[in-house]
Amino acid sequence: MEATTQLAYALDTFYFLVSGALVMWMAAGFAMLEAGLVRAKNTAEILTKNIALFAVASIMYLLVGYSIMYPAEAINAWWPGIGALLGEENTVEAVLAGGDGAPYYSKMADFFFQVVFVATAMSIVSGAVAERMKLWSFLVFAVVMTGFIYPLQGYWKWGGGFLDQLGFSDFAGSGVVHLTGASAALAGVLLLGPRKGKYGKDGQINAIPGANLPLATLGTFILWLGWFGFNGGSELKISDVGEANAVALVFVNTNAAAAGGVVAALLTARVVFGKADLTMALNGALAGLVAITAEPLTPTPLVATIIGAIGGAIVVFSIITLDKLKIDDPVGAISVHGVVGMWGLLAVPLSNGDASLGAQLIGLFTILGWVFIASFIVWLIIKATMGIRVSEEEEYEGVDIRECGLEAYPEFTGARGSAI
Amino acid sequence: MEATTQLAYALDTFYFLVSGALVMWMAAGFAMLEAGLVRAKNTAEILTKNIALFAVASIMYLLVGYSIMYPAEAINAWWPGIGALLGEENTVEAVLAGGDGAPYYSKMADFFFQVVFVATAMSIVSGAVAERMKLWSFLVFAVVMTGFIYPLQGYWKWGGGFLDQLGFSDFAGSGVVHLTGASAALAGVLLLGPRKGKYGKDGQINAIPGANLPLATLGTFILWLGWFGFNGGSELKISDVGEANAVALVFVNTNAAAAGGVVAALLTARVVFGKADLTMALNGALAGLVAITAEPLTPTPLVATIIGAIGGAIVVFSIITLDKLKIDDPVGAISVHGVVGMWGLLAVPLSNGDASLGAQLIGLFTILGWVFIASFIVWLIIKATMGIRVSEEEEYEGVDIRECGLEAYPEFTGARGSAI
Amino acid sequence: MEATTQLAYALDTFYFLVSGALVMWMAAGFAMLEAGLVRAKNTAEILTKNIALFAVASIMYLLVGYSIMYPAEAINAWWPGIGALLGEENTVEAVLAGGDGAPYYSKMADFFFQVVFVATAMSIVSGAVAERMKLWSFLVFAVVMTGFIYPLQGYWKWGGGFLDQLGFSDFAGSGVVHLTGASAALAGVLLLGPRKGKYGKDGQINAIPGANLPLATLGTFILWLGWFGFNGGSELKISDVGEANAVALVFVNTNAAAAGGVVAALLTARVVFGKADLTMALNGALAGLVAITAEPLTPTPLVATIIGAIGGAIVVFSIITLDKLKIDDPVGAISVHGVVGMWGLLAVPLSNGDASLGAQLIGLFTILGWVFIASFIVWLIIKATMGIRVSEEEEYEGVDIRECGLEAYPEFTGARGSAI
Repeated sequence: MEATTQLAYALDTFYFLVSGALVMWMAAGFAMLEAGLVRAKNTAEILTKNIALFAVASIMYLLVGYSIMYPAEAINAWWPGIGALLGEENTVEAVLAGGDGAPYYSKMADFFFQVVFVATAMSIVSGAVAERMKLWSFLVFAVVMTGFIYPLQGYWKWGGGFLDQLGFSDFAGSGVVHLTGASAALAGVLLLGPRKGKYGKDGQINAIPGANLPLATLGTFILWLGWFGFNGGSELKISDVGEANAVALVFVNTNAAAAGGVVAALLTARVVFGKADLTMALNGALAGLVAITAEPLTPTPLVATIIGAIGGAIVVFSIITLDKLKIDDPVGAISVHGVVGMWGLLAVPLSNGDASLGAQLIGLFTILGWVFIASFIVWLIIKATMGIRVSEEEEYEGVDIRECGLEAYPEFTGARGSAI
Repeated sequence: MEATTQLAYALDTFYFLVSGALVMWMAAGFAMLEAGLVRAKNTAEILTKNIALFAVASIMYLLVGYSIMYPAEAINAWWPGIGALLGEENTVEAVLAGGDGAPYYSKMADFFFQVVFVATAMSIVSGAVAERMKLWSFLVFAVVMTGFIYPLQGYWKWGGGFLDQLGFSDFAGSGVVHLTGASAALAGVLLLGPRKGKYGKDGQINAIPGANLPLATLGTFILWLGWFGFNGGSELKISDVGEANAVALVFVNTNAAAAGGVVAALLTARVVFGKADLTMALNGALAGLVAITAEPLTPTPLVATIIGAIGGAIVVFSIITLDKLKIDDPVGAISVHGVVGMWGLLAVPLSNGDASLGAQLIGLFTILGWVFIASFIVWLIIKATMGIRVSEEEEYEGVDIRECGLEAYPEFTGARGSAI
Repeated sequence: MEATTQLAYALDTFYFLVSGALVMWMAAGFAMLEAGLVRAKNTAEILTKNIALFAVASIMYLLVGYSIMYPAEAINAWWPGIGALLGEENTVEAVLAGGDGAPYYSKMADFFFQVVFVATAMSIVSGAVAERMKLWSFLVFAVVMTGFIYPLQGYWKWGGGFLDQLGFSDFAGSGVVHLTGASAALAGVLLLGPRKGKYGKDGQINAIPGANLPLATLGTFILWLGWFGFNGGSELKISDVGEANAVALVFVNTNAAAAGGVVAALLTARVVFGKADLTMALNGALAGLVAITAEPLTPTPLVATIIGAIGGAIVVFSIITLDKLKIDDPVGAISVHGVVGMWGLLAVPLSNGDASLGAQLIGLFTILGWVFIASFIVWLIIKATMGIRVSEEEEYEGVDIRECGLEAYPEFTGARGSAI
């Protein structure tokens, strides 16, 4: 009995660690996706932002974020502790005590799984503000976002706060993670304005093609893989028959929704643009994944495919609409994570009888409102102090040289590249 | 006892899910490999095909394929079920009942592991027909292949059909997956014909270099990693000493065969071409992996290295031979997965006393015959209706613009690229 | 009881295999990192070296290395055995016998975990000698390194040799793996000399920018992910509460150190160069990872962050210093793995009361001395027989054409590329 309990603890901990490693891998996915969708001259800078934001998130969430989001798990809510900044690990005695309150997996594994989530939310922002935001201003925002803005709303739902008590349902974070990232991104984009040349004076919208689509495709596949950890790990337990079945269903539904998203986006793009637009297929996959994230456990695989497919169709129209509104989002992050994140939240009651549309709407607007307003204020302060937008000259020449002192592809962009 | 049985169920399910995620990751490997080995002007289209075929495979296998291949696992063989399209999950009672027939891992995990396999088979096709096949015609073929052609032969072996009863041995699918993909590819290639300019009028063979070899190398490493899930997961159980030892041996042998394939292909290329040809090293790794896939459990690691090495040597000569026969396969998929897949099947009796050369030959020709003929007919029908080959003009200009409406590397291919 | 023991065996074996697969994935990381940091004209060759060295390491370690490093695990220390070249697997009886000496995970899983480590050490070498070393000479060195030089020092610590008995502490190999790789690299670099044009006659140092920074960034993320297996797997057991907690802490600390390394390197580069140098951020991440590898279990996450951050700062100054000494290391491997590896070893006593600075220094100088001297002699012999450096003409034109007979990016490097 004792040995079995310890084994179950080990298995659940290992499952958490593997899931967390897959979510960490999503950081690479965002980096590749965004690097592939910007122009060559802005590539090194977006890569720098991506690896730096992951580091900032890891440190800030350790120092303050985790304590805010899960006050019960940390030393205490106000982290005065020097040293671990995390609570003591579970003792064997506590584990073997049994009962509903007994810990069944490592606290450190829980922290690991949570810390990679906050990085995901922040990665969403970097894509939307790409090609024109100052690097160090972005990183200052990352400090506030990952240390405070994200953890507070995370507490409201996953930490047991008021949204949780209201019955708001968000299994793995269509709202808590994806809509959060997109709301912060939207605030930044509105303050930044569009890239030079994106919107013509006579109302035309100019496509600014990404420099490296294999990279963007790789990023999408990385995210797809990582999402098995993102959604699969969010079941939080695997060590008995019922839990193992649940995790398996989450894997199947996550994959099904992504597949549905690809097919729907590709067909929608075929109809709308007359072409099998690769970038829409990629965004369709991500949209399917975001859509199923709020509830990957209650739908059947067929329903999951349909939820993902609707996400895939929505994302195409959302990208078109945002462009008409002159909201310039180079990678489509606001559409994929924000608009489709809302669809994911609202779709929960379709398959989960315990969810209500009312609670979903309250959660949606709470997250959107809090993150957008808080982010807007922070962006405003940064704008007033450090500035948020690079100079016109720097934007024309590309941010890589001035910000990073190097080029991403020094040998590839000859006459043709410099003309763009 | 109860708790132990449930834990074993959870561990086996988790092992399946991790293995399946690794196999899903192979889709990224094929995408990168193929994107790296085609010319820049055809890159976005091959990426679109790769992500779309994975989505199509996921949906078609859910809707019909799984029910055909594993009639015992699905609701019933003729899938009239609305809803899950998959059978009910195992109950705790059924698991605890024990005995040989008791389920020991989640049905959904089984589906997940199977659905990524069918995508692998389809990925093999896209490489061979690259740079000249119409995108939508390819996807229509993918619908038939993943929904019907693959599942039926899969049933004959893994679903318990006549090949299984005959004693045909194919541990993880040198035949069921790799030869299947290659046979469908061969049928398509024969109907398509070679790329313009590949074979000169006076019999010379023109090398058409791939645009991005780091991408092709990345793809190969991804496939190598994913293969641990492909072969390792095919043991189907890990939860006792004997099974854990077996899975570990499969991991070691899989790695050893790939290593043998690299070294042999590199040395063979050195002798034949006088150069350490990177693309041959990559194909050698894949050939080693395909070769060991039919039986990664009975050889010692040294024998596995040799089986892989022979595969690595075969692939070099096969690629040369197919070119002499004017069978144009831009990525070498028919050689790697077809010719070496046959070697893998025939090598089984070398280390596995329960296998016979006769049964292996029957399995080999059954799979080759069925898949080639069925695929040929389907390709013919598509050719007669939608057409399968792009226009000469489109082929010259690259399929990316017409099919996808964008370029994979809009800034990199200047004067030099357009001349190819 | 029996069933529980078997389950624990299965879980520990699975944990080893997953960890080993993650370490194998690091081979892709090194390949991408190095391919991104060299010039386009030398890219295919560095890729060939990377995949070939992994294959050579896999074969040599099977044939001789493992028996030297772990004589107790192999058939015997002098491998006369034909066949497996590895000992017999554990029987169920031996596992169930219990007691301290009873095996608790598969021997094959142990071999798998070890074989991917030796490849890691060898991957470090390829980067430092890039752009000027002959391919086949490099591979001959790889044979000796992975078969003999690495395993012997590995035996001294991990095989239970004199360094282990002296109390030298190196959890996952800051010394055994990283310093080893760097010491062999340093010997090679000293004999090779710098690349043409790197150091001007009047003492100036010319930057030779890498051709593909997204690739280098991808490689860094791959290494970061793989390191969870590298350090996490080195706990060697996960199947009870204490061990599971330990593995989880190792994961958290590994991530924290990498994060600290990124931030410190980025800030240091900002101060020193005035730019947010992406390549320094990447090297900072790797430096953080190398620094924590010697002891990821005893620090708190905050201390781990600081240990990594110090590594990230060290690496910037080390790269600058080596350049001043005209030690030309195109990817910074000697700084990252050697100099920071030493920091990692010396930092162990800061958090681990069982370690002593004296024992750490003995271990450090033993590894450095043995590997440097042995490697130097082997490089000398290769230089005298095959030569180690390509001709000046070949270096100018790029090693890809002559060594591999192909180009990595045939369409991308137009007028601009050829001028570099």
